[in-house]
Amino acid sequence: MEKLRISLIGAGRVGKVHALSLKNNIPEAELVAVVDKDEEAAKRLAKEFELKMYFKDYREALNWGKFDAIIITTPTFTHKAIAVDAARVKKHIFCEKPMALNLKEADSMIQEAKGTKVKLQVGFMRRFDRGFLAAKEKVKEGSMGEPLLIKSIGRGPGLPPEWAWDIKKSSGMLAEVGSHDFDTLRWFAESEFDKIYAFAENYKCPQVKKKYLDFYDHAVVIARFQNGKLGMLDVGCPVGYGYDARMEVLGTEGVIFAGGIKDNQVTVCTKSSGAVSSIYNSWRDRFKDAYIDELRHFVGVIKRDEEPLVTGEDGKKVVEAVAAANKSIQIGQAVSLPL
Amino acid sequence: MEKLRISLIGAGRVGKVHALSLKNNIPEAELVAVVDKDEEAAKRLAKEFELKMYFKDYREALNWGKFDAIIITTPTFTHKAIAVDAARVKKHIFCEKPMALNLKEADSMIQEAKGTKVKLQVGFMRRFDRGFLAAKEKVKEGSMGEPLLIKSIGRGPGLPPEWAWDIKKSSGMLAEVGSHDFDTLRWFAESEFDKIYAFAENYKCPQVKKKYLDFYDHAVVIARFQNGKLGMLDVGCPVGYGYDARMEVLGTEGVIFAGGIKDNQVTVCTKSSGAVSSIYNSWRDRFKDAYIDELRHFVGVIKRDEEPLVTGEDGKKVVEAVAAANKSIQIGQAVSLPL
Amino acid sequence: MEKLRISLIGAGRVGKVHALSLKNNIPEAELVAVVDKDEEAAKRLAKEFELKMYFKDYREALNWGKFDAIIITTPTFTHKAIAVDAARVKKHIFCEKPMALNLKEADSMIQEAKGTKVKLQVGFMRRFDRGFLAAKEKVKEGSMGEPLLIKSIGRGPGLPPEWAWDIKKSSGMLAEVGSHDFDTLRWFAESEFDKIYAFAENYKCPQVKKKYLDFYDHAVVIARFQNGKLGMLDVGCPVGYGYDARMEVLGTEGVIFAGGIKDNQVTVCTKSSGAVSSIYNSWRDRFKDAYIDELRHFVGVIKRDEEPLVTGEDGKKVVEAVAAANKSIQIGQAVSLPL
Amino acid sequence: MEKLRISLIGAGRVGKVHALSLKNNIPEAELVAVVDKDEEAAKRLAKEFELKMYFKDYREALNWGKFDAIIITTPTFTHKAIAVDAARVKKHIFCEKPMALNLKEADSMIQEAKGTKVKLQVGFMRRFDRGFLAAKEKVKEGSMGEPLLIKSIGRGPGLPPEWAWDIKKSSGMLAEVGSHDFDTLRWFAESEFDKIYAFAENYKCPQVKKKYLDFYDHAVVIARFQNGKLGMLDVGCPVGYGYDARMEVLGTEGVIFAGGIKDNQVTVCTKSSGAVSSIYNSWRDRFKDAYIDELRHFVGVIKRDEEPLVTGEDGKKVVEAVAAANKSIQIGQAVSLPL
Repeated sequence: MEKLRISLIGAGRVGKVHALSLKNNIPEAELVAVVDKDEEAAKRLAKEFELKMYFKDYREALNWGKFDAIIITTPTFTHKAIAVDAARVKKHIFCEKPMALNLKEADSMIQEAKGTKVKLQVGFMRRFDRGFLAAKEKVKEGSMGEPLLIKSIGRGPGLPPEWAWDIKKSSGMLAEVGSHDFDTLRWFAESEFDKIYAFAENYKCPQVKKKYLDFYDHAVVIARFQNGKLGMLDVGCPVGYGYDARMEVLGTEGVIFAGGIKDNQVTVCTKSSGAVSSIYNSWRDRFKDAYIDELRHFVGVIKRDEEPLVTGEDGKKVVEAVAAANKSIQIGQAVSLPL
Repeated sequence: MEKLRISLIGAGRVGKVHALSLKNNIPEAELVAVVDKDEEAAKRLAKEFELKMYFKDYREALNWGKFDAIIITTPTFTHKAIAVDAARVKKHIFCEKPMALNLKEADSMIQEAKGTKVKLQVGFMRRFDRGFLAAKEKVKEGSMGEPLLIKSIGRGPGLPPEWAWDIKKSSGMLAEVGSHDFDTLRWFAESEFDKIYAFAENYKCPQVKKKYLDFYDHAVVIARFQNGKLGMLDVGCPVGYGYDARMEVLGTEGVIFAGGIKDNQVTVCTKSSGAVSSIYNSWRDRFKDAYIDELRHFVGVIKRDEEPLVTGEDGKKVVEAVAAANKSIQIGQAVSLPL
Repeated sequence: MEKLRISLIGAGRVGKVHALSLKNNIPEAELVAVVDKDEEAAKRLAKEFELKMYFKDYREALNWGKFDAIIITTPTFTHKAIAVDAARVKKHIFCEKPMALNLKEADSMIQEAKGTKVKLQVGFMRRFDRGFLAAKEKVKEGSMGEPLLIKSIGRGPGLPPEWAWDIKKSSGMLAEVGSHDFDTLRWFAESEFDKIYAFAENYKCPQVKKKYLDFYDHAVVIARFQNGKLGMLDVGCPVGYGYDARMEVLGTEGVIFAGGIKDNQVTVCTKSSGAVSSIYNSWRDRFKDAYIDELRHFVGVIKRDEEPLVTGEDGKKVVEAVAAANKSIQIGQAVSLPL
Repeated sequence: MEKLRISLIGAGRVGKVHALSLKNNIPEAELVAVVDKDEEAAKRLAKEFELKMYFKDYREALNWGKFDAIIITTPTFTHKAIAVDAARVKKHIFCEKPMALNLKEADSMIQEAKGTKVKLQVGFMRRFDRGFLAAKEKVKEGSMGEPLLIKSIGRGPGLPPEWAWDIKKSSGMLAEVGSHDFDTLRWFAESEFDKIYAFAENYKCPQVKKKYLDFYDHAVVIARFQNGKLGMLDVGCPVGYGYDARMEVLGTEGVIFAGGIKDNQVTVCTKSSGAVSSIYNSWRDRFKDAYIDELRHFVGVIKRDEEPLVTGEDGKKVVEAVAAANKSIQIGQAVSLPL
């Protein structure tokens, strides 16, 4: 069978993760080109992965056109233009989270993809994590009854790049990190957000706040869904210890936990140290398989002409929830949805 | 040394726990009398513990007077009268949580106790749990930096007695169960609540709601402290699995966990079951030692004439937080403190 | 009801643990006297626990005689004489492990106790640990099928006192520490040892070996029971980290674990440390409740005139297993039992 | 760069695992042919993986010769002939464990590979497991002092195929399953076996024993190394619960654990079930990454012309240890090495 040809738009950290997945783990697809505004970065990645082509501007890549799909890993504020232009020339789209800056952008992307019948998948890789999937499966089996309260934690060790500090370009930490948590809540609640309330604080980055007044690095959120279920999430970035993605579902008959800070590899115990278990240092370690599986899924749905498990609509709902949470932080009151 | 003589006011579940602690684990004190409106219950407990006296009305016990201190385990709405009357005749007071129905009641209790110089300790036994204490110690040591976010969970397997279903008599589930969680947040934040927001739902007790319109059995709360720290808590009662009291402190350099659902006894693993660990079925198992230790502390502070670690002021601050959370649930908006 | 009066023979570490249990946790008994060859130690303990009497020689205590039972916590080589003399004057006997130096001594103790109808309980406190008991219960319930292989670990942080270094006075580390492990194997196998093979090494105490040629501080043992079940155990003392008592039962349908190195209190996680859980530092922490429960059981069986759960026969079988293991270490071959 | 071409000898379960690794995860190599005595099996696998060629006899494949290396996954008693013949025509060799039936066979394989300068790697995939590697790294760092005692557990859910029931064709369960455990002991002891003692029982397969008198399905082993370190291992197959590969290293300053029965995915807790964690069902799940990594290593060492981390010598030492353990089971006494 023909390999699916993919162009990568964005040669940064997560871009490289996807390039590695394609090279090492997804033989049914191949990376053929890379695009980055920083042409040197594009060139380096192209060399490292032995790609045919690299470009400075995504439009050049679209003009060249010898590929079937794109993976967008550029800053949030660029997603909409790239996705819409790609859809117009019938390239399938895998778009990193957060999908877009606002609902209007998200709508454009969804409509354009629908109009030209290209696949649009959003990068909520936690939906492909074996632990989260197992939790979802357990909920479906009904072993813990009906879910009532869904909790999610998203914390990472480092600050995102500077463009993400500007809430206008990125929707802030709740979008950059918390998008996953909002998606997890919604995935398990099987309902839409009805009301959201959030507190946020800037604990660690006083210098950033000088430049970006709205900046916060920690936030806590409670939510109510239309079907009456409750949600809680907290995000923090940077946190002092590592990468931490956990969830918990309280149901009528029990409780389910997925994810954890320990990486299950080794425990060392001495008198002075206590029992020390190794932890996840980055999202790369924590979601190693999930990143591969989401891309394998993307390649698969294109080949089989199916709908992806994580659609543009899913991405849009999270954009909306983030917007509501950011508004709640600003006005100090609960915000009702839909916006 | 003379044994400290104690009368127990309230012959219910937690009353019996305290009676057992006094009998089996606190040789420096002795239970001498029990009071319960249900005279048969008082009589039975008196017989079981070989007590000299039992009474139907706490005022009879105060009139008799041959003891040094009381333990109040009656319904919340009775605490204030008993405590105030006891203080007036110079009996030291150990009062179960929640301390009182409202701030005014709490103030009366505190003032009366101060006026007659009797000790007043509130039953926040989690402050005596070795895990929670170890967490507090770790925070003090600074090993995880400055605390930023404190999270607490309080869930129990069964409904409290009917009087507690009436939010006017008990302040509801956030008071009955959540008092511990509010206290834990405040204990670790080392600050007073500034703002509280809560959602609540009645998932499991539709029949109760018919009679008590304000009733809820699950609630989620986010809080901000005056020093800028954040808090999150959720309570649920009844939950389907067991007794669950956990906490987590996110600090600038790391994270601390105390408590857990597994009781650390035994794990059984078979193909059909997976790896099954035993869990805590009730607060009696979970806080067995903490219940003993808080009473030992109470006896000790009286004998050494010191201040208890958990004062009437601590109890009052939680009464206030609960009131704010209940108000938030009713008005659908955040509530600022002090009330 | 009259309190059971107990004399403590041996004012050392474990003696003090038992004295504390009696004082704080077993109101139905009271410590009335203490005996120690080191008269100052006896006097100190008597003062601390407000005891009526203290003696230098256990025979003086027996002559005085105003008590019902004794607790023997002296060095192993003294157990037999004390127990036999006590039985002759009808004092019930709680004897620390190992019960005796050899089978002949153990037989004398058992026979004398039987002859005068006094209770004889051996200090295998692991049989009273809630985790080990839960494991035994799970095995009985049959949830993991028929037990096939029983494994036990016994490790402690410190060296025992010098008399225990001399294998002739103590039967060595397999007796001092490993007695518990042999007993656990036998308890779960529900059969008698058929064949034992052991390796031992002296890794940490080269200086001790100069004086006591047979000394070893680590040993590994495999065993076969008469009913065909297998056993494995390892003991080490001193080990570098803490107190470690764990067991595992492999059954036809599954596996059971009891015990662990983590004390279930608190986990701290930072980037530099990883996830650090607190551990048990000593047998006092690890088996805090079990020490109380075994003594409560002893007091109870005397009062109710029942057989203790851990009899002199149980003690003797472990003495025999230890002797077989020591012989195996010496001759380098497997040793068949009974000896 | 040219892809390394590999032929697979043996189209069974582990053969398919390696074929999948090559297809999905090791782009720098490709499977070109498969051999199986069961020609249909070879054909099926060839079709599934779109291979150019399939053969019934490995000699046909060697005659064809258009490949660089072979992976041997056939029954143990065939390893030597295949490896020797392959080495003679200069094909690199990856050989599943156990390497050979006896020392003589292992020697032939090693010598032939040395003579023709082909790589010879033995399939001890645990050496590539991230947990075991992390444990080895921690030992090297010295954080727990000098290793004294190494323990390993190897248990699987199902019986191996019938040829493996005959101890003469397979060296029994200690070879089939326990080879990994012997290798782990030796890897961490960094010394050669000096003395081995073993007990074995047939608990679950009475019908097998009728045909194969020496058959056992559970075994326990203790070992001493030339450098004085001790080892313990137990193997069981089939066990009732899942796949279980764990290890523990006791060092002078602490203890290290690697591996576990829980797969770290999800925990479900209900009143009736307790806290249930998911477990590993098979070696495929447990060592998913390790199987890929060992093959990636094999491909890498060929391309870079280096020595593999797990050599024929390593394989041979385990063959010797297994032979010693089997002899010990038969004669009922300890066996000294080298044989």
